[in-house]
Amino acid sequence: MALHIYNTLTRKKEAFVPLQDDKVTMYVCGPTVYDYAHLGHARSSVAFDVIKRFLEYSGFTVFHVNNITDVDDKIITRSNESNITIAELSEKFTDFFYEDMNALGVAKANVCPRATAHIIEMITFVQNLIDKGHAYAADGSVYFDVTSFDNYGSLSKIKPDESLSETEKKAEAGKRNPRDFALWKTSKENEPFWPSPWGNGRPGWHIECSVMSSKYLGDQFDIHGGGVDLVFPHHENEIAQSEAFSGKSPFAKYWLHNGFVMVNKEKMSKSLGNFFTVRDILKDYAPSTVRFFLVSTHYRSPIDFSDSALKEAEKSFERILNARRQLGHAQEDAVETENWTDYDSATLQNTMDIKKGFIAAMEDDFNTAGAINKLFELSKISNNYVAEAKPLNQGVIIHLNQLFNELGGILNLFLSDTEESSSTVDKVDSVMQILIELRKQAREGKNWAMADEIRDKLSEANIILEDKPDKTVWKIKE
Amino acid sequence: MALHIYNTLTRKKEAFVPLQDDKVTMYVCGPTVYDYAHLGHARSSVAFDVIKRFLEYSGFTVFHVNNITDVDDKIITRSNESNITIAELSEKFTDFFYEDMNALGVAKANVCPRATAHIIEMITFVQNLIDKGHAYAADGSVYFDVTSFDNYGSLSKIKPDESLSETEKKAEAGKRNPRDFALWKTSKENEPFWPSPWGNGRPGWHIECSVMSSKYLGDQFDIHGGGVDLVFPHHENEIAQSEAFSGKSPFAKYWLHNGFVMVNKEKMSKSLGNFFTVRDILKDYAPSTVRFFLVSTHYRSPIDFSDSALKEAEKSFERILNARRQLGHAQEDAVETENWTDYDSATLQNTMDIKKGFIAAMEDDFNTAGAINKLFELSKISNNYVAEAKPLNQGVIIHLNQLFNELGGILNLFLSDTEESSSTVDKVDSVMQILIELRKQAREGKNWAMADEIRDKLSEANIILEDKPDKTVWKIKE
Repeated sequence: MALHIYNTLTRKKEAFVPLQDDKVTMYVCGPTVYDYAHLGHARSSVAFDVIKRFLEYSGFTVFHVNNITDVDDKIITRSNESNITIAELSEKFTDFFYEDMNALGVAKANVCPRATAHIIEMITFVQNLIDKGHAYAADGSVYFDVTSFDNYGSLSKIKPDESLSETEKKAEAGKRNPRDFALWKTSKENEPFWPSPWGNGRPGWHIECSVMSSKYLGDQFDIHGGGVDLVFPHHENEIAQSEAFSGKSPFAKYWLHNGFVMVNKEKMSKSLGNFFTVRDILKDYAPSTVRFFLVSTHYRSPIDFSDSALKEAEKSFERILNARRQLGHAQEDAVETENWTDYDSATLQNTMDIKKGFIAAMEDDFNTAGAINKLFELSKISNNYVAEAKPLNQGVIIHLNQLFNELGGILNLFLSDTEESSSTVDKVDSVMQILIELRKQAREGKNWAMADEIRDKLSEANIILEDKPDKTVWKIKE
Repeated sequence: MALHIYNTLTRKKEAFVPLQDDKVTMYVCGPTVYDYAHLGHARSSVAFDVIKRFLEYSGFTVFHVNNITDVDDKIITRSNESNITIAELSEKFTDFFYEDMNALGVAKANVCPRATAHIIEMITFVQNLIDKGHAYAADGSVYFDVTSFDNYGSLSKIKPDESLSETEKKAEAGKRNPRDFALWKTSKENEPFWPSPWGNGRPGWHIECSVMSSKYLGDQFDIHGGGVDLVFPHHENEIAQSEAFSGKSPFAKYWLHNGFVMVNKEKMSKSLGNFFTVRDILKDYAPSTVRFFLVSTHYRSPIDFSDSALKEAEKSFERILNARRQLGHAQEDAVETENWTDYDSATLQNTMDIKKGFIAAMEDDFNTAGAINKLFELSKISNNYVAEAKPLNQGVIIHLNQLFNELGGILNLFLSDTEESSSTVDKVDSVMQILIELRKQAREGKNWAMADEIRDKLSEANIILEDKPDKTVWKIKE
C-alpha cells in the first residue's frame, strides 16, 4: 500500500500522486498575528508538520508555504485598542508564533509570506479578475462575482444561493449577490490603506492566499491545508479566485483539513473565549507532552483538550520515554556478539512488523493515532527484551534504539526536553551517586569525619542530602 | 552634563534634544539577507542596541526601526547560483540574522520592515519625486536628478560633481548626470520584478530606507544610524530623496555612524573575503565575550578583530565576572546590620562616584570604553570589599550586586552564558571538586582502593580525571 490521503474536495481517500514526480508543493493557511498562538494554531501547525515530515520520510521533497495574515479587521481593532502600530503588533506576534511553534518542534515552512508584502501582486491579481469579468468595482471596493464562476461550491458543496444566513441575505451595499465577497475593501477611517486603481483601500482576506500560493507554488499545486473551519467560505473563495484567474482546475489537487480542538464539547476559539495559549500551557507541560497530546489523535478528528487529557498524554508518553531510557541504561551491559539467540531474532522480527505497521498507519491518511500505538508496542517489546534477554545483545539494543529514533523522528516526538540521558542534570546525578556511595561506605566504616565532610561540602555547593530508610537522595537548595 | 551625541551631519558633538519631548525615533540600516551575519553586522547591531538601551535608561521611550533588504543584486545573484528562490533565501538568512543577534543580546527593533513588503509605497514615493521634478524616467528605469536638489552633499560633504571615479564619469545609459542614482530599475532577465508605471522592474537600494522610515517614523525623525561606509552614497541619497519628497529638512536630526571592524588593518568585508561570521566566532567564544569585545571600543572608532583580541576581551571580561562571582559567594557570609563601618560607607561612596562616571562616559557620545573602565573600577572595589571587610555588610554586598546589574544591564553584558552560579555545569563542577579533594586525601592517606574507586566510577559516568603537576582537572569523555 502506498500513501492515501483523504481529500475534502472529493470526500474520499485517494492515492497520493503529486503533480511533479517526487516534488510536493504544499500551502497551509497560517495565523492572523494579533495575539498569542492558542492550542488551535498549535494543532494545525503540528498536524501539517507531521504530514510534511512523513512525506519527506517517504522520499518526497516538500516545498511548504505558510502565510502570515498581517492585515485584517482583528489586527486593526487590536492595534487601535492598544495604541500600537499594526506593523509593530504583527511583528511581535509573528515572532511569538514562531517561538511557540519552534518550542513544539514545528519546522518553519520554506517561505512564510506576509500579506502586506504582496499588496502589489494582489492589486494585479484583482485587476486581472475584473478584466476577465469575474469581479467588479463598486464604491471603491472590488467584489468577486460568484455567479461568474461555475465551479463555486466544489469544495464545500455549498452553492451560492444555499444556506444563506439572514445577515448574508441583506447583501452589503454594492454587492450584486449576497455570496459575492470583497477582493479589495475601500479604506475606512483609522485603517491602514494602500493606493490602488479603485482608490485607497486594503485587500480582502481571501485574496492573499490565492496570490501568495500562485506566486510561490504556481497556479496549481499538490496540497492545500488548513483548519476545517476554513473550508467555507475561505477555501471555497480561494478556489473561485484562483481558478477564475488561471483558468486551470483544480487549484490544489488535495485539500486537507485538520479537526478542531474542543473544550467541554465546544470548539476552542477566540470568539468563545474558551481558548488556551500555547505559552500558558507550556508553563505547566513540557513541549514534548503537548506535541504528543496533539499527535495522539488523528489530524482530522476533533481533539478534546483538558488538564486531565494532557496529564493522560504525559503518562502515556512517559511509557515510551521510559522504554528509551531503559535501552540507554542497557547499552552499557550489552555485549557484542555474533551468536544471536532465538529471542534476539524474534525481537528483531517483531520490530520489523512494528515498523511496517507504523508506516501503514501513516500511509493511511497520516493516522498518527495508529502509529503511536505501534510505538507503545515497540516500548513493550523493548522493555521485555531489556528485562529478559541474557545476555543483552548489543546489536539488538542498538537496533531498538535506532527504531525509536526513526519512528519517533517522523512524528518529531523526542524534543530536547526529553533528552535526559545526555543532559548535564544526568551528569550531576551520576557524580552525586558516587559521592553518596562513598559517604555510605564512610559511615559503614565509622569514618564520621569523612561522611560529615562530604555532607558539609555539598551543602556549601547548595546541595542537600536526605537520608531515607532505603537510600539517600539529593536535591538542590531552593 | 546631559547626553551629547556626535552628529555626522554637523561633524560636532551636540546636546541631544529629540523632536518630541521624551520620545526618540530611530532608524538603523539593517542587513542585506543573502548570507550569514558577519562581525561587521554584529558591531552595528550591538552599537545601536547599546545606544537604544542607554536612551531608555535615560528616560526616553525609543521607537526603533531596523530594515531588512530582501531584494538586491547580491541576493539575486546568490539565489540564481544556489537555485533557491529569493523568498526562501531571504527568509532563511533573515531568521539566521535574528538568531545570531539574539545570541549577542541585541533586542529586536519595534518594527523590522522588509523592502519587498513596501514596493507599492516605493512606487508612490518615486512617482511623487517625478511629479515634483526631482526624478525622471528613462528606458523603464527612474533616476533621481541630483542637480534638482540643492542640499546634496550636506551629510558627506561631497558635491555632485566632485570625486567622481572613472566608472562614474561614464554615466550609465539614460542618466543625465553621473551622480544621478536609480530609484527604480527596469527588469533584467532572471530577476524578480513588480509592475509599475514605468514597466516591470524593481526598486533601487536607497529608496527603501526613505520610504520605510517615512512610513514608520514620519518625514522627520531623531536618529539615523548605520555603518560609516553608508554615509556616501547611501545616506546622502536617502537625504536627497526624503527631503525632496517632504520639503522638510533635516530628514534625520542626528546621524550616527559606527566604525569598521578591521582585520590586519583592512576593513572586514564580504568583498575582501576577510570576514568572519558571527556563527563561526560563537563556536569558539561565548556570546558575552563577543559582545564585551564589541562594546569595549567606542562605537565610532575602528575595532581590530583578531583571535588574540577576543582572548584579551575574554580575560578582561572575566575580571568583571569574577568580581560578581565573589559577591555571589560573599552573600552567604554577609550579615544584616545597622552598624555601618567607615569602610562600608566609603565603599558605598566610591560606588556612587563610579556610577556617576559610568553615566558621564555614556552621556559623552556613548563612550562605552570609558563606561567599561568604570566597571573595572567597580570590580576592584568590590573584590577589595569582599576580601577585607569584617564583617561583610549585607547591605553593601546587595548594593554592589545591584550596581553591577544596573550598569552591566545598560550594556547588556551579562548574557545567559555568564550566569554560571545557577547553572548545572557549575553544579557538576562543585560536586566534582569535592570528589577530587576526597581522592587527593585518599591518595595522601595511601588509601589506593578508594582513590581508584573514585576514578573508576567517574569513568563509568563518562568523566575523566587528569592529574596535572599542581592540580587535578576533570572533563567529559568525548
